[in-house]
Amino acid sequence: MKILVINGPNLNMLGSREPDIYGTKSLDDINSELVEYSKTLSDNIELDFFQSNHEGDIVDKIQTAGSYDALIINPAAYTHTSIAISDAIKSVNLTAVEVHLSNIHSREDFRKKSFIAPSCIAQISGFGKDSYKLALLGLFRRLK
Amino acid sequence: MKILVINGPNLNMLGSREPDIYGTKSLDDINSELVEYSKTLSDNIELDFFQSNHEGDIVDKIQTAGSYDALIINPAAYTHTSIAISDAIKSVNLTAVEVHLSNIHSREDFRKKSFIAPSCIAQISGFGKDSYKLALLGLFRRLK
Amino acid sequence: MKILVINGPNLNMLGSREPDIYGTKSLDDINSELVEYSKTLSDNIELDFFQSNHEGDIVDKIQTAGSYDALIINPAAYTHTSIAISDAIKSVNLTAVEVHLSNIHSREDFRKKSFIAPSCIAQISGFGKDSYKLALLGLFRRLK
Amino acid sequence: MKILVINGPNLNMLGSREPDIYGTKSLDDINSELVEYSKTLSDNIELDFFQSNHEGDIVDKIQTAGSYDALIINPAAYTHTSIAISDAIKSVNLTAVEVHLSNIHSREDFRKKSFIAPSCIAQISGFGKDSYKLALLGLFRRLK
Amino acid sequence: MKILVINGPNLNMLGSREPDIYGTKSLDDINSELVEYSKTLSDNIELDFFQSNHEGDIVDKIQTAGSYDALIINPAAYTHTSIAISDAIKSVNLTAVEVHLSNIHSREDFRKKSFIAPSCIAQISGFGKDSYKLALLGLFRRLK
Amino acid sequence: MKILVINGPNLNMLGSREPDIYGTKSLDDINSELVEYSKTLSDNIELDFFQSNHEGDIVDKIQTAGSYDALIINPAAYTHTSIAISDAIKSVNLTAVEVHLSNIHSREDFRKKSFIAPSCIAQISGFGKDSYKLALLGLFRRLK
Amino acid sequence: MKILVINGPNLNMLGSREPDIYGTKSLDDINSELVEYSKTLSDNIELDFFQSNHEGDIVDKIQTAGSYDALIINPAAYTHTSIAISDAIKSVNLTAVEVHLSNIHSREDFRKKSFIAPSCIAQISGFGKDSYKLALLGLFRRLK
Amino acid sequence: MKILVINGPNLNMLGSREPDIYGTKSLDDINSELVEYSKTLSDNIELDFFQSNHEGDIVDKIQTAGSYDALIINPAAYTHTSIAISDAIKSVNLTAVEVHLSNIHSREDFRKKSFIAPSCIAQISGFGKDSYKLALLGLFRRLK
Amino acid sequence: MKILVINGPNLNMLGSREPDIYGTKSLDDINSELVEYSKTLSDNIELDFFQSNHEGDIVDKIQTAGSYDALIINPAAYTHTSIAISDAIKSVNLTAVEVHLSNIHSREDFRKKSFIAPSCIAQISGFGKDSYKLALLGLFRRLK
Amino acid sequence: MKILVINGPNLNMLGSREPDIYGTKSLDDINSELVEYSKTLSDNIELDFFQSNHEGDIVDKIQTAGSYDALIINPAAYTHTSIAISDAIKSVNLTAVEVHLSNIHSREDFRKKSFIAPSCIAQISGFGKDSYKLALLGLFRRLK
Amino acid sequence: MKILVINGPNLNMLGSREPDIYGTKSLDDINSELVEYSKTLSDNIELDFFQSNHEGDIVDKIQTAGSYDALIINPAAYTHTSIAISDAIKSVNLTAVEVHLSNIHSREDFRKKSFIAPSCIAQISGFGKDSYKLALLGLFRRLK
Amino acid sequence: MKILVINGPNLNMLGSREPDIYGTKSLDDINSELVEYSKTLSDNIELDFFQSNHEGDIVDKIQTAGSYDALIINPAAYTHTSIAISDAIKSVNLTAVEVHLSNIHSREDFRKKSFIAPSCIAQISGFGKDSYKLALLGLFRRLK
Repeated sequence: MKILVINGPNLNMLGSREPDIYGTKSLDDINSELVEYSKTLSDNIELDFFQSNHEGDIVDKIQTAGSYDALIINPAAYTHTSIAISDAIKSVNLTAVEVHLSNIHSREDFRKKSFIAPSCIAQISGFGKDSYKLALLGLFRRLK
Repeated sequence: MKILVINGPNLNMLGSREPDIYGTKSLDDINSELVEYSKTLSDNIELDFFQSNHEGDIVDKIQTAGSYDALIINPAAYTHTSIAISDAIKSVNLTAVEVHLSNIHSREDFRKKSFIAPSCIAQISGFGKDSYKLALLGLFRRLK
Repeated sequence: MKILVINGPNLNMLGSREPDIYGTKSLDDINSELVEYSKTLSDNIELDFFQSNHEGDIVDKIQTAGSYDALIINPAAYTHTSIAISDAIKSVNLTAVEVHLSNIHSREDFRKKSFIAPSCIAQISGFGKDSYKLALLGLFRRLK
Repeated sequence: MKILVINGPNLNMLGSREPDIYGTKSLDDINSELVEYSKTLSDNIELDFFQSNHEGDIVDKIQTAGSYDALIINPAAYTHTSIAISDAIKSVNLTAVEVHLSNIHSREDFRKKSFIAPSCIAQISGFGKDSYKLALLGLFRRLK
Repeated sequence: MKILVINGPNLNMLGSREPDIYGTKSLDDINSELVEYSKTLSDNIELDFFQSNHEGDIVDKIQTAGSYDALIINPAAYTHTSIAISDAIKSVNLTAVEVHLSNIHSREDFRKKSFIAPSCIAQISGFGKDSYKLALLGLFRRLK
Repeated sequence: MKILVINGPNLNMLGSREPDIYGTKSLDDINSELVEYSKTLSDNIELDFFQSNHEGDIVDKIQTAGSYDALIINPAAYTHTSIAISDAIKSVNLTAVEVHLSNIHSREDFRKKSFIAPSCIAQISGFGKDSYKLALLGLFRRLK
Repeated sequence: MKILVINGPNLNMLGSREPDIYGTKSLDDINSELVEYSKTLSDNIELDFFQSNHEGDIVDKIQTAGSYDALIINPAAYTHTSIAISDAIKSVNLTAVEVHLSNIHSREDFRKKSFIAPSCIAQISGFGKDSYKLALLGLFRRLK
Repeated sequence: MKILVINGPNLNMLGSREPDIYGTKSLDDINSELVEYSKTLSDNIELDFFQSNHEGDIVDKIQTAGSYDALIINPAAYTHTSIAISDAIKSVNLTAVEVHLSNIHSREDFRKKSFIAPSCIAQISGFGKDSYKLALLGLFRRLK
Repeated sequence: MKILVINGPNLNMLGSREPDIYGTKSLDDINSELVEYSKTLSDNIELDFFQSNHEGDIVDKIQTAGSYDALIINPAAYTHTSIAISDAIKSVNLTAVEVHLSNIHSREDFRKKSFIAPSCIAQISGFGKDSYKLALLGLFRRLK
Repeated sequence: MKILVINGPNLNMLGSREPDIYGTKSLDDINSELVEYSKTLSDNIELDFFQSNHEGDIVDKIQTAGSYDALIINPAAYTHTSIAISDAIKSVNLTAVEVHLSNIHSREDFRKKSFIAPSCIAQISGFGKDSYKLALLGLFRRLK
Repeated sequence: MKILVINGPNLNMLGSREPDIYGTKSLDDINSELVEYSKTLSDNIELDFFQSNHEGDIVDKIQTAGSYDALIINPAAYTHTSIAISDAIKSVNLTAVEVHLSNIHSREDFRKKSFIAPSCIAQISGFGKDSYKLALLGLFRRLK
Repeated sequence: MKILVINGPNLNMLGSREPDIYGTKSLDDINSELVEYSKTLSDNIELDFFQSNHEGDIVDKIQTAGSYDALIINPAAYTHTSIAISDAIKSVNLTAVEVHLSNIHSREDFRKKSFIAPSCIAQISGFGKDSYKLALLGLFRRLK
């Protein structure tokens, strides 16, 4: 089971970026924790990680993700502005889950709208770094 | 660790209600599965279940939930119309997670707005019956 | 042919409630007239009546209405605020007709929007107590 | 008792026009059925029929309808765009009922708004060809 | 000085149409009064009158109005719905004045918006039948 | 002089519920203070109290309030979502005053709109528990 | 017949102010022309003029205008922002006509809305300095 | 205890201004009644009154009100259009109560929005001249 | 291959109508050019032309167009206001292309919305008289 | 005659991407067909192709396109979100045509708005791969 | 070089007014600093200062400012509500710069809209008292 | 004192791009002028320049700007569409000033909204190339 994890703009700054909202762990910490967590589910889960601040890079990456079984994506700021990323997910017909560290539904109004959601089967927001683990568990149970 | 699980209107019809959207499992099946799943996490998780089609009953129940460590709530239709339930959660200062079977962010526009979200730490939608399990896992990791 | 007739909040006050808008007949008068009218259509029409001011009670009632052939519902104020009732009708897959005493389309703006309509095959508004009879006739002709 | 029945644009295409939404009966069939139905109510009901695709023709016709006791009108597309027809009904002070074959309240948003409603006592939508019969019955009972 | 006076839908009903709002004079009365009034201004004013309930007829008429010095138009209901009439005025480059019997700016919201205004040099509303006379005086002074 | 005091959802939690916004007195304290205050106005004021988290219960209660001289109502969350309660007040033709502990006009936007206001003669918000006393004084002076 | 003419902010700058839109005549010129014009109507018309850039001064002036038979007001920028002036006109129950030099209905969107209109019997816009004369003629004919 | 009472535009016309909405008492009557009422509360309440039709005068007055304990303000039309008055209250950090004679929440839509509310602790509307007394009582109890 | 070309209101004025926007060719010129162009594509293309300023006439014409293979329509002003024309196209199930001389998407906001688009396979705007030729080429390639 | 053809995000996926909407031809197929088609028009048309998923790359490319005679651009998802691309076209003053495979005016609402349109002379949507050919023909005729 | 500096409502309260937002310097301090700063630019800059809480006074002042080379204006609350001030600037054709102490674009939504901006060449907000100095420098460089 | 100056999309085209709006100086000219100007302020100001048409590149650059004392950013088109850039500024906690050549508040509506403003202390728009100098002066005075 191969799963691609994509993180959008400014998530490479985690740990130092607005820690009140986003926590004190770095993105590497979060990724490592996720790999460890995946092993508690199965030995056969392969995780690849990709982070970019570029909308176009994220679109490029998704387009090459045909060999993956699923996508976990935290589109960050592009959640609210990118139709291109949403179209990309549809273009490769990937099972995708949208993930957010904070509960976007209790923040500024412009953070409540997701252009990505219509291309995803599910959305998790507000569990901090555990949002990724829950997404992985959800996908694991579904793909089995 | 005591957790209250509240299900809102028409969720008692699960299994027969629009199975294309909501699946073929009954609410009892879902609850049983959740109890079983909780045991894989810890022997000390106690789950209580409550379902009602009455906004007022749900408010009443939440107000008495002071002894619980957390709340998992699928407010169903009341997600989009009930300020009273949202105020109730705030009134008892409960750690709450909002859960939806379907991905409400890719359905009708009126299902995208949640009055409940500002009273919750997190929201999970779209994993079907597994949405509850993910909520439980998220709470378990947080409350530990 | 069994038909359930549901009346929403404040319709039990008919006769005394704002008679300029809603007329001087009580709900019992209207129900009796409807029974009489049903006999002019067929001997086999069985009518059951239910009124409640509680959104939840109306949802409960609809959920148990699986044995009926059709539903006539005047949701009154809940027309404009209840997604729960609309979801309930869909959850039991009932043939439903929405009925209003006054012509809601020529009153306040907030009375023009119906959350219930998408769950109903038809809507009648403005014929006063005869709105129910027309709904019954419409259903009778359709169900035959 | 003389009643004028006006049908708006494209209703002359009934039978062949989008039969999934509008049914397979022609407008002549519907009119004939309505005449027959009127005889079950009374021998004294006289029905005149008028159909036009022209907003202006419909306004002209309504202005000459002073000798009728009532108007049944299916304004079709003009429901949502014609203030002129609505003003015409008011200008002759006719008792009018608005009729639609499909349930306009569960279709596209632009079909939910009626400019005609404020000039009518009632609205019926969704009973297909029977919508006209129900309108006739409603008027018959009211005018008696 | 040749001036065309166009009256839109339902203005042929003046006198009997909602006299509280529109007064008790017929359109012929109003036109006659206007002719008389024109003579108090000059012997050389020629007035032609045209009334139609048809948007298309009004467009046709305006297109042939190239020989007139100016246009006085009461577009009635088409004020708020007709881009075609507005475009027609621009297409013949006529000096036009928009006229209304009632003060449209203190009535229903939908009567406050004019599609015709951007094609006219001026607008007069609320002086009843005198609105036409004022428009004529205004044009007379301007064209001199 | 008999006056009914109705409190809506979550007001039974006063004292513990978000004390920064709603104060530290319980609803019983507030009611007792109001009774005491009423005695400073007259010996003949009789106060009855009713609290419910159920929209339907509040509608039921109002419908039976025909024998009261006036109603003081704090609809809480239902202020912004309940047309049924507003219709109920109109249905019994009660002199009603709307009361809020906090100044709802300086809080979230959704708390600024009141469906109840059109059925009330007056609104008081922001005086905490004294809002009820001011409402009582206002009614007392008016009913005398 | 005594008529008060009020001009709002920046109209004292006429002649030099944006002459493309507002013309090259000064306000004194316009007032003088209006007096001359009034004499063509009757010897008994008395005109008083008032201009201010102060919303409050205009309100003050209107309040003292009880002895006038009518008011001609060009509220200029206050047309779109002043409820106080509109309320003032209602408070003295004056027959008022709203006047604009340019056709406000074909300019910026914010110039299309008039708070003053609901307090006036009529509105004239777009005839330049002749707008005042037409208003005077309209009032003269009406008051006779 | 020194309290400043400010009345906005057109309130000096009370008694003659639209008595159906605003009552038949003059502002002086209302002020006198308020002084008398204050004596029933305490001998130490000093009331100063100020009325102006000028937004700027009201701002000036508020800025000099630093020595008062509280402000009662009926901003009238400026309620809905003046950010300057709202900022002025904040600039002197005064405890302020917003007062309205009529229930602004059941009138025109533009009268429902208050720019002043965010600078006030409370709002009272609909009790006619008693609105001021209730505001005084509320302040008196709070300041004690 | 038979193709019907329909031109809406004011397009008969081409050549003289606002030549800056719409060009200096008459509609006849444009039609002739189109016929010539069609011959460069095939000998078997038959073109019929229809122009009307009447919404109803255009609806009538479309309804009789069952024998055509396709429709090229420039609805002009009716693009933005006519649901009737859009419904007519659907009622005869014609392959239709919407054509505009100017680029409607870079003009006034009200010209950006097309009620006709949902009934057409394609839209071309901005190529002046060549818009028709491109539409013909597009249809020719598709129908082959 | 040199023409640059730019394709935006996800158009490199054509053929496999949602073939129901976008067809089964690859972008290379479409480009080859366009080259072939260009030869039917003239031997002197030179076509260069550029595709990118990066908004910035598209801006870069357009800025260097000064030597081209025209631009054909299918901005795909960036149609609705990119002001930068629109500004880029204006910055090099290129004659540009906007092209879409599907009819964007009959899809989701957010696909109806084009930020690119105001920088283009024309727009073609809905002819599938032929949209490019029609754009080329339109430009060819215009540039000759 | 003569420059007029106008400050709007409540800016005379600077130093004591909400110091968190507006700083602790008085307006006199700010003006003195600006004079000193002007001398670092040139000996020939003459600065005149005007502050008022009255919209009308500001309009009056601007109208007399014809002899100035430029205007620096901080309209404060009138930024968002005064069309009169904006029209006044246009009426004297002054080169004007709009200045704000705080960054109005990151505050309440109603503070983001400026009616004054369309009459100004530039806007500076957020530099506190230095906003004036930057405006002066900008004007100085431009007027040289 | 190290300051980073970032210019967004199409600003590399300055000089040739729409010179009516943006001036005739190239970006290099502007940067050189800014360096020269900085020397008039202090010898210790170090300026680094970065321009990109890529949203992602700008985000990347900002993330590495931790060692700078402040940021001057002209986000150009991304002002109105990029949440990512705004989040990036917050993520490195930089003192930032937003700069525009033209006065964006008097142009198209979509250019009035800034997603970047909430991450900046100040905004300057409309001084052309001097906007940068004013921003530098503002920052210099603040950082001292």
